[in-house]
Amino acid sequence: MINGITERQFETIEGGVCAAKGFRANGLNCGLNSDKKKNDLGLVVSDVMCGAAAVYTTNKVKGAPILVTKAHLAATGGKTRGFIANSKNANTCNADGVEKAEKMCALAAGALGIDPKEIVVASTGVIGQILPIEPIAAHIEELAAGLTYDGNRKAANAIMTTDTVMKEIAVAFEVGGKRCRMGGMAKGSGMIHPNMATTLNFITTDAAVSPELLQRALSDVVKVTYNCLSVDGDTSTNDTVLLMANGLAGNAEVVSEGEEYETFRSALYDVMMRLTRMLAKDGEGATKLIECECVGAPDLDAAITVAKSVIRSPLVKCAVYGEDANWGRILCAIGYAEADFEIDKVDVDLSSARGRVAVCRGGAGVAFSEEEAAGMLAADEIFIHIDLHQGQAHAKAWGCDLTYDYVRINGDYRT
Amino acid sequence: MINGITERQFETIEGGVCAAKGFRANGLNCGLNSDKKKNDLGLVVSDVMCGAAAVYTTNKVKGAPILVTKAHLAATGGKTRGFIANSKNANTCNADGVEKAEKMCALAAGALGIDPKEIVVASTGVIGQILPIEPIAAHIEELAAGLTYDGNRKAANAIMTTDTVMKEIAVAFEVGGKRCRMGGMAKGSGMIHPNMATTLNFITTDAAVSPELLQRALSDVVKVTYNCLSVDGDTSTNDTVLLMANGLAGNAEVVSEGEEYETFRSALYDVMMRLTRMLAKDGEGATKLIECECVGAPDLDAAITVAKSVIRSPLVKCAVYGEDANWGRILCAIGYAEADFEIDKVDVDLSSARGRVAVCRGGAGVAFSEEEAAGMLAADEIFIHIDLHQGQAHAKAWGCDLTYDYVRINGDYRT
Repeated sequence: MINGITERQFETIEGGVCAAKGFRANGLNCGLNSDKKKNDLGLVVSDVMCGAAAVYTTNKVKGAPILVTKAHLAATGGKTRGFIANSKNANTCNADGVEKAEKMCALAAGALGIDPKEIVVASTGVIGQILPIEPIAAHIEELAAGLTYDGNRKAANAIMTTDTVMKEIAVAFEVGGKRCRMGGMAKGSGMIHPNMATTLNFITTDAAVSPELLQRALSDVVKVTYNCLSVDGDTSTNDTVLLMANGLAGNAEVVSEGEEYETFRSALYDVMMRLTRMLAKDGEGATKLIECECVGAPDLDAAITVAKSVIRSPLVKCAVYGEDANWGRILCAIGYAEADFEIDKVDVDLSSARGRVAVCRGGAGVAFSEEEAAGMLAADEIFIHIDLHQGQAHAKAWGCDLTYDYVRINGDYRT
Repeated sequence: MINGITERQFETIEGGVCAAKGFRANGLNCGLNSDKKKNDLGLVVSDVMCGAAAVYTTNKVKGAPILVTKAHLAATGGKTRGFIANSKNANTCNADGVEKAEKMCALAAGALGIDPKEIVVASTGVIGQILPIEPIAAHIEELAAGLTYDGNRKAANAIMTTDTVMKEIAVAFEVGGKRCRMGGMAKGSGMIHPNMATTLNFITTDAAVSPELLQRALSDVVKVTYNCLSVDGDTSTNDTVLLMANGLAGNAEVVSEGEEYETFRSALYDVMMRLTRMLAKDGEGATKLIECECVGAPDLDAAITVAKSVIRSPLVKCAVYGEDANWGRILCAIGYAEADFEIDKVDVDLSSARGRVAVCRGGAGVAFSEEEAAGMLAADEIFIHIDLHQGQAHAKAWGCDLTYDYVRINGDYRT
């Protein structure tokens, strides 16, 4: 149990955001990206109106698309038909940002023959450059006409920026005797930090769940998945997690907490946790995923704070890159975590598919074989296990190593 | 005025920690460092007892030397004759850490013929490896016998770890009609972040100032100098700032606030600010110093929070390395600073010795010449100017760019 959520692994299925019934998707290159092989504009639409829940960046600088998405969901009472998204330009910190974001919705709605308020919008890319609307306008008919029930990969490609791999997942689960599906796509990969990231995350499901429970489940899950992700400690201006439920699975709407809600929420945790791991593993320049688990914490927030503190430490990240079992840096990062606990009870182990090494007991180092540790750290998924031994709460956080390529990618991103 | 302190530039003099009357220093290689040309053990001693003030790391993991230093200063009522310091081993997270730190003091005191409580101790280097005391014991007589009134560089060399340059400064000032001197030495250079760092900072002065005012001045100054320094966001376990005043300048002891205290505190600001800049400029792998000034803030803490948020952003740091005027990342870092202000009033300029470019007005980007900006950013000291336009407070923070070399240095530090 993390944050009251039962961790379960569900049946993995194909289809990403199109795995759930009644969702069509498309993506194409409209010219924002000069690489014509890379999509830069995506559209995902449900056949029927969806209940929607969303979580946004906590940054004071909020991208214009977020302002427009919020306004549209407010206008429709939390319902939407779908979203349009672009990469290459964040449409943020521009005087005409809201106007352009509204225009994107209007263009999509026009091509679909629906109300602009029934579409929401997301943008990712460079901040502070005027978004040219012409390329989008010129391709909107083609984009809408090409929507298909298996177009998920085209849309997933459209939202990628410095991502090196496409991030999609889908699972099947049963609610009220009906088989339901939930799928998601996400993009990273720099400027990712607790309380969101330059991540765009879109989750679709055909389960019928009341809007209130959708938002509750999303908030519970985000706290222990996306918000426990850190690639570089920067919190972006455009982060959005959007969950859309269209009810086409045919289950009786879940309107109260109970077993069905628990199953739905566990499925959401499974989807979002797996997307979070993908985002961490594909952090800018990353060669290794780092998963840090903190158990034995006095409360959930302490567990999260400790796990995140370790995940975001540049020195820990460099040590993992160098396959160096420098546990002193881990203890140091635990030590500056802003939570209330005693450091001299703390145990730390490191593990991977290649083995597990105890490195710290009761806040002090223990002898271990450097050779064995180095062999273990040669894996591409590294686990840091922290036991505070002062409570029952636990949490996980995800991140990646800090490498030369991170510096290369971010030293000259705009040009 | 920063934090009520008048910024003044004082006469620079030679001598580092030996610039003040009656301070002798020495340093040598005792064998902790296998590079025999690099000192690893230093000793600084005043001819007479000093009043002492100190500030330590806020990390829960506190190096054993800090525990011993605190205990010794408590035992003597805040007085000390001097300190012994080593590099290469932090003597932290070891079961026998306190015993070894006490032993270092006892060895130094024995060689000097004084009480062990009259010596304090600092260690820097790898965490969690047992400190071998034998090399120190074997060289302590030689170290004490070699103390001289111009040995400051030998001691400054002894505390360096990955530092590429020695960090020393000294100034002269007048208090009560007497010429006084104040000098300092510091070491960086990774794991440096607000609320201290793997920095060791030792300041000596021959001014006579009461213990209470020494501590007050040090706390005021640390808040707006060292604690506004960030190299990589990590807060170390061993950070110590030690200020020693032996009164040999002959001024009547400063015992209350007023003009003399103000002068003393301004001198302390000048010394510590200049050491802070040196630490930032020599951050691990750094090629450029970044100084971020936030003016127009509602209060000092908001100004500090904003300036530090920008300084520690990995994306800003990479952009400066790449000489890319990616001001959107600066605005983003301002936006996630945890302070209460409106983002849409914010102006940002970038400058260097090569010019100044306005990049953001009222929270939105303004047109500027990329060529001009790139030329300006080619300098090795980059200034970021932020005006929140919502108050009178201001603060500065110092940091450096994030480079390939940071990753290289920290990917394999122990081996």
